[in-house]
Amino acid sequence: MINIGIVGGTGYTGVELLRILAQHPKVKLKVITSRQEAGIRVDELFPSLRGQIALKFSDPAKVDFGKCDVVFFATPNGIAMQQASTLLASGVKVIDLSADFRIKNIAEWEKWYGMSHAAPELVTEAIYGLPEVNRDKIRNARLIANPGCYPTAVQLGFIPLVETGAVDMNHLIADTKSGVSGAGRKAEVHTLYAEASDSFKSYAVAGHRHLPEIKQGLSERAGNSVDLTFVPHLTPMIRGIHATLYARLTRDIDLQTLYEDRYANEPFVDVLPAGSHPETRSVRGSNFCRIAVHRPQNGDTVVILSITDNLVKGAAGQAVQNMNIMYGLPETMGIQHIPLLP
Amino acid sequence: MINIGIVGGTGYTGVELLRILAQHPKVKLKVITSRQEAGIRVDELFPSLRGQIALKFSDPAKVDFGKCDVVFFATPNGIAMQQASTLLASGVKVIDLSADFRIKNIAEWEKWYGMSHAAPELVTEAIYGLPEVNRDKIRNARLIANPGCYPTAVQLGFIPLVETGAVDMNHLIADTKSGVSGAGRKAEVHTLYAEASDSFKSYAVAGHRHLPEIKQGLSERAGNSVDLTFVPHLTPMIRGIHATLYARLTRDIDLQTLYEDRYANEPFVDVLPAGSHPETRSVRGSNFCRIAVHRPQNGDTVVILSITDNLVKGAAGQAVQNMNIMYGLPETMGIQHIPLLP
Amino acid sequence: MINIGIVGGTGYTGVELLRILAQHPKVKLKVITSRQEAGIRVDELFPSLRGQIALKFSDPAKVDFGKCDVVFFATPNGIAMQQASTLLASGVKVIDLSADFRIKNIAEWEKWYGMSHAAPELVTEAIYGLPEVNRDKIRNARLIANPGCYPTAVQLGFIPLVETGAVDMNHLIADTKSGVSGAGRKAEVHTLYAEASDSFKSYAVAGHRHLPEIKQGLSERAGNSVDLTFVPHLTPMIRGIHATLYARLTRDIDLQTLYEDRYANEPFVDVLPAGSHPETRSVRGSNFCRIAVHRPQNGDTVVILSITDNLVKGAAGQAVQNMNIMYGLPETMGIQHIPLLP
Amino acid sequence: MINIGIVGGTGYTGVELLRILAQHPKVKLKVITSRQEAGIRVDELFPSLRGQIALKFSDPAKVDFGKCDVVFFATPNGIAMQQASTLLASGVKVIDLSADFRIKNIAEWEKWYGMSHAAPELVTEAIYGLPEVNRDKIRNARLIANPGCYPTAVQLGFIPLVETGAVDMNHLIADTKSGVSGAGRKAEVHTLYAEASDSFKSYAVAGHRHLPEIKQGLSERAGNSVDLTFVPHLTPMIRGIHATLYARLTRDIDLQTLYEDRYANEPFVDVLPAGSHPETRSVRGSNFCRIAVHRPQNGDTVVILSITDNLVKGAAGQAVQNMNIMYGLPETMGIQHIPLLP
Repeated sequence: MINIGIVGGTGYTGVELLRILAQHPKVKLKVITSRQEAGIRVDELFPSLRGQIALKFSDPAKVDFGKCDVVFFATPNGIAMQQASTLLASGVKVIDLSADFRIKNIAEWEKWYGMSHAAPELVTEAIYGLPEVNRDKIRNARLIANPGCYPTAVQLGFIPLVETGAVDMNHLIADTKSGVSGAGRKAEVHTLYAEASDSFKSYAVAGHRHLPEIKQGLSERAGNSVDLTFVPHLTPMIRGIHATLYARLTRDIDLQTLYEDRYANEPFVDVLPAGSHPETRSVRGSNFCRIAVHRPQNGDTVVILSITDNLVKGAAGQAVQNMNIMYGLPETMGIQHIPLLP
Repeated sequence: MINIGIVGGTGYTGVELLRILAQHPKVKLKVITSRQEAGIRVDELFPSLRGQIALKFSDPAKVDFGKCDVVFFATPNGIAMQQASTLLASGVKVIDLSADFRIKNIAEWEKWYGMSHAAPELVTEAIYGLPEVNRDKIRNARLIANPGCYPTAVQLGFIPLVETGAVDMNHLIADTKSGVSGAGRKAEVHTLYAEASDSFKSYAVAGHRHLPEIKQGLSERAGNSVDLTFVPHLTPMIRGIHATLYARLTRDIDLQTLYEDRYANEPFVDVLPAGSHPETRSVRGSNFCRIAVHRPQNGDTVVILSITDNLVKGAAGQAVQNMNIMYGLPETMGIQHIPLLP
Repeated sequence: MINIGIVGGTGYTGVELLRILAQHPKVKLKVITSRQEAGIRVDELFPSLRGQIALKFSDPAKVDFGKCDVVFFATPNGIAMQQASTLLASGVKVIDLSADFRIKNIAEWEKWYGMSHAAPELVTEAIYGLPEVNRDKIRNARLIANPGCYPTAVQLGFIPLVETGAVDMNHLIADTKSGVSGAGRKAEVHTLYAEASDSFKSYAVAGHRHLPEIKQGLSERAGNSVDLTFVPHLTPMIRGIHATLYARLTRDIDLQTLYEDRYANEPFVDVLPAGSHPETRSVRGSNFCRIAVHRPQNGDTVVILSITDNLVKGAAGQAVQNMNIMYGLPETMGIQHIPLLP
Repeated sequence: MINIGIVGGTGYTGVELLRILAQHPKVKLKVITSRQEAGIRVDELFPSLRGQIALKFSDPAKVDFGKCDVVFFATPNGIAMQQASTLLASGVKVIDLSADFRIKNIAEWEKWYGMSHAAPELVTEAIYGLPEVNRDKIRNARLIANPGCYPTAVQLGFIPLVETGAVDMNHLIADTKSGVSGAGRKAEVHTLYAEASDSFKSYAVAGHRHLPEIKQGLSERAGNSVDLTFVPHLTPMIRGIHATLYARLTRDIDLQTLYEDRYANEPFVDVLPAGSHPETRSVRGSNFCRIAVHRPQNGDTVVILSITDNLVKGAAGQAVQNMNIMYGLPETMGIQHIPLLP
C-alpha cells in the first residue's frame, strides 16, 4: 500500500482527490491537513464522504509526513514551493496540483504569479505531469508538477497538430469555457450562484496565468516557439472544460488519422468519430479527455474540440494517474469512473 | 457471472443501469433492447459509455432472452406486465423498474395508471423491492417490483415513525422535490431547459400516482391504514429527491435514537447527526438515502428530511441492490459509488 | 417628483430598487451610499444599469439626506435602527427593507437577531408595510417596516384562511423554497455556484428569523395566537419563492371563493383558477404574488401555493408599492413589469 | 395606434413579442394565431401574461388580418414566405422573424434551409432589419427580414472592423455561445433540462444556417467577399448570446475609438470601456448589444466580445425596433426595459 498525505484538503481538488483515493485499491490515506478545519472530521465538512473516510483534518503546523510515501499538494499557489524540499529530502515524493513547479522560466512564473519563487532549483527537477507527453520521465520522478485544468485540455487538443507542424504556429487560438468549480471553493462574490448562474462571460482576456504554461508545453512539442491567443470563459455549470481550438493549416493532412494515431494507446484520451460534438457531461466525474476534429467547409481553418472534467483529468484524476505511473501500478487503477450522465 | 438483459435501455433509468452494471464484477450484460434505436451502438447514443459497453441496441421483437438469468425492465408503465410471465415461465427472473407490479390492489392500480392490468396474478407474486423492509422475501423472489423514486425516499423517511405508532397516521404530509430527470428522457415542452430552469413549481397536487404506492407501503408498516397528503414539486436540478416530511407526535419519543436504531444495519440508509440539513448533492450518483430528524421548537410537529438520488436508490441502484440480494451477492456489490461533489 | 435616497445600494435588494426606481416616472434618485464602493459609479458595479443611472456611490459618513423626501434602507439588519430617528426628525420618511422594525416585541426581536435594539420607540411607530393588510396605515406612515421575503409569500397565502378561522391555527405548516438571491450578495461558500447549483437542501429547520414575523402577522389577522412550523429550503434558481402551505380544515368552506373575494381588489395578488400550479418564473421580475388553492382528495388538509419574486414583491417592489401609497400615487406606478418568461 | 397581428405566437419569440407589445404605448394587439392552441386564452398558456393580454389564440385558417397595420411572423421557417404576398397586397406590412427573407441568394437559401422558396420576388424587396446598417431603408419598407440571433451579435461585433478594412477578411472566426431558448419551444430530447443542464457543447460545426446570413451581411459592409469560421455552442442558460470574435489585424488602428465612433449614435449598441468583460445577464430581457474590444498582449489578433439577449435584440426587441422605425415612432419606444440582474 502507498501511504498518502494531502496538504490542503478543503478545496475542490482536495475533495476530489479524497473521492478518488478513498476507493483506490493500493493506497492508504494517512493524513490530510487544513489550517482552518483542523480537528474537524473530513466527512463532517463533506457529507458525501460519510462512511468512506474516517480521518480528521490535521493542523499543518503539527503534522508529520514521515510515514507518507507521497504527498499531494491541493493548496493555493505558493505553498508547495515552500514545503517540497523538506519532504523530498526525507524521501517523500511530491505531487503538486498547484502551479508552483509548472513553469520552467522562473522570471516568467514570478511575473504571472506575483511572488518570488522559493525553490527555483526544484523547478528544474520537477516533471510536468502530462502522461501523454512525459510518461517515461514521470516513472522516475520525485516531484510532479501536475498540469493546470485549461492547459491539459488545450495541450491535448493541440499536440498532434503542433507535433506534425502542419499549422501556423504563431496564431493558434484557444477559446475555452470552464465550469465554475474551476474558480475554487473560495468565498467570492463573482462566483456566487446568483452571479454566475444563467449568464456567460469571458475573463482575463488580456492575459491568464495558464497562457505561459500552454505556450511552454506546445513550444516544447513543436520544437519551436508557439504563440496563441487564449480566451477563457465562465459557463454556468459545476464541472467541465470545453476547449474550442482554432489553427490555420499550412499543408494538407488527414486530421482524423493524425489524432487517432497519436492517441491510439492512451487510456484516457478518446478521439471521437469524425463530425462529433462532445458534451462536457460525457466526461463528468471521469478522467477522460474526449477530442473531436473538424475542418468546416473544407477550408484551411481547423477546429478541434477538447473536453475534460476540470477536477479529474484537469486536476485530481491526473494527479492519481501520475501516482500510478510513479509506483508502477496499472495507469488506470482507481480512476476508471464512468461519467455520470445525466 | 449473472447474465443480464435490459428491456428499454434508452431512458434515464436505462442508462443509469448501464453505468452501474458495466462495472459490476459479477454480471455480464448480454442484451439490451430499444425499438427506436435498434442497431445503434449503445455508446453512440450515450458517449459517456464509450469504452465500457460494446453492445448495440436490439429490436425487442427479435430478441431472445433465453440466455439471460435476469431481465430488468426500464420501460414505460404497461410493458413489463405483458412480457413478464413468458420470461418467468422460461426460468428468467424479472426486476421491473416500472410501476406494473407495485400496487397490490388491481382496481386501484388501474385507476391511477389508466389501463387494464395484463397480469394480475403476477402482482400477487411480485415482491416489493424495498430491501429495508422486504430483504428476506427478495432473496427468494422471481419477480421484483422495484419501488418508485418518491416512494423510496418518503417511505424510508416515515417508516420508523409509522412502525412505532407515535404519530397521527391520518395526517402525514410529504412535501417532495425532485430533479428533472425524474420526468424521464421524453421530448416534452414542460421539461425543456428553457421551461424548467430557474423556476420552481408543484405538480399533480390533486393526486400523483406515487400516492397509492406510498400509502400501501406505510399502511403495511403501520399495520393499519395510513393517510397522507403528498405534494410533489419540480426543482431545477438534474438528479435528486428531497422529501420534507411532517407528522404530528401523539406521544413523546426519542426520535434520533428511533431512527438510528431502525437503520443501524442498513448499508444504504444513513441517519445524520441531530440538527443536520442534508443536501441532495451529498448522494449524487450514489445509492444512499440520508435522513435527518428535527423537532422544531420542541413542538409536536416532527420534520423528517430524506434525500436520495432518484436514478440510483430511487431506481437503478436499488434494482441492482435487489439483484445482489436475489443472487446471494454482497448487497453493496457494484453500487458503492461515492457521491460526486461538487 | 419625490427625491430619493438609498442607504446600502450594493446588495440585491439595492440593485433591484435601482432597476425599479430608474424608470419610475415620479421619482428622482438623489443619493445612494456604500461604504465599500464609495466613489465608484453605480453602473460600473452593475453594468445592467448603464445609461440608466449616472450616480456614484457616496460615502455614508459624508452624505446629506436633507434633500431627500424618503430614504430606503437596503442594508443588513442593525443599520436602519441607528439612523432612522435622525432622518425622521429632519422630516425625511424612511422605508426600511431590513428587519429592524418588523417585530413589535423587542425582546423577541433581540433574541432572533442577536443584538440590542437601538430604537425601540420607533418600532412602536413603524407600520408593517404589507399593503394587503395595512394600506390605510401606510398612507400616513413616516416609517415603514418592509416585510421579509418569506413572510410576504407565507402571509398572503395564509391570510384568507386565518381571517376566516376555518383551520386549526396551532398547526399551520409552511414549507418554503427560495432562490439563492435570497441569501444576499455576500461572499460566502455555501451560496457559491458550485455549492448551490444542481442540489437542494433545507436550512434553519430548528428556527428561522422569519418565523416570529410570520407568527406576529398571522396572529394579528386571526385575532389570536397562531402557531406554525416553518421550513425554508434553498433551491437552485436565482429569484423566486414558492411557499407550499398546509392547514387542517375545521369546518367546510368554499376555498376558491374565499381567496378570490379576499384579493378581488388587490392589484398584485393574483388568485389562479382552481387546480393551478404556479411556477415561480411566472412572476420573475414582477411585483405579483400568485396563489393557487388545493384540497387534495377532498380531505381535510388544505394546500395553498403562493409564489413571489423575493426581490420584488418580497423586497424592492413592495417597498416602492409602499412609497406609492405614502405619496398618494397610483399604487402600481413603476412596478408594472411583466414577468420575464422564459 | 398601430394595429398588430402575430402569426405563430406560442414559441419563445412569440411570447417575447407579447411581453413587449403588451406595454408598448402606441400599439393595439388585434389578433394572434396558433394552429395548436386555437381557442385557448394567451394567458392560460403563458400565466406570466395574466392581466396583460385578454386575447385568445385564433385559428390561422380563419383569421382576417385586414384590420392589422402590420403582421409579425414568429413562425418556423417556410411559413411567412407563403403568406406575405397576400398581406402586402392588402396593404399590411410584414415583419418576419423567421429566416424566409434574409438571404438574397435564393439558391443559397434553398441549400441551407432545405426547401424551395415560395416567394423569391419578395426576397428582393425585403429589407434586412438591422437598424445599425439599414435604418433608412427600414423607414420605408413594407417587408422586413428580421435578423437571426447569432447574426445580430456577430455582425454588430464585426461591422466596425470590416468597414474599416483593417483585418484579414478571409479568416474571421466567430466562436458563439447561446442560451437554450435559442433552440425554440419545441419538444426535443437534446434541449431537455436533464440533457442541456450542467453541460456545454458545440453543434453544427460543419455548417450552421446563420453562416450564410453573417457572410452576406459582413461582405456587404466590407464591399468584398468575407469568409469566416462560425462555431456555435449551447450553454446552460435560458437567454443570452455571447459572441467571441477573432480577427487578424493587417494594419495598426485605435480599436476602442473605432468602435465608440461607429456606434456613438446607436441607442442599443453599448461599447464598453476598454478591458471590459460583458456578462450576458447584463442585457437579460433588454434590447441592448454590449461590445468590448481587446487586443491581448498587444499582438495582431483582435478579440471582440459582443453580447445580446437572443430573444430581444436577437429577435422580438429588434422586430419592434424595426416597427418603431417604420412608423416614425421614437426608435426606443416600448423597448427600454432595464436588464434583469440578478
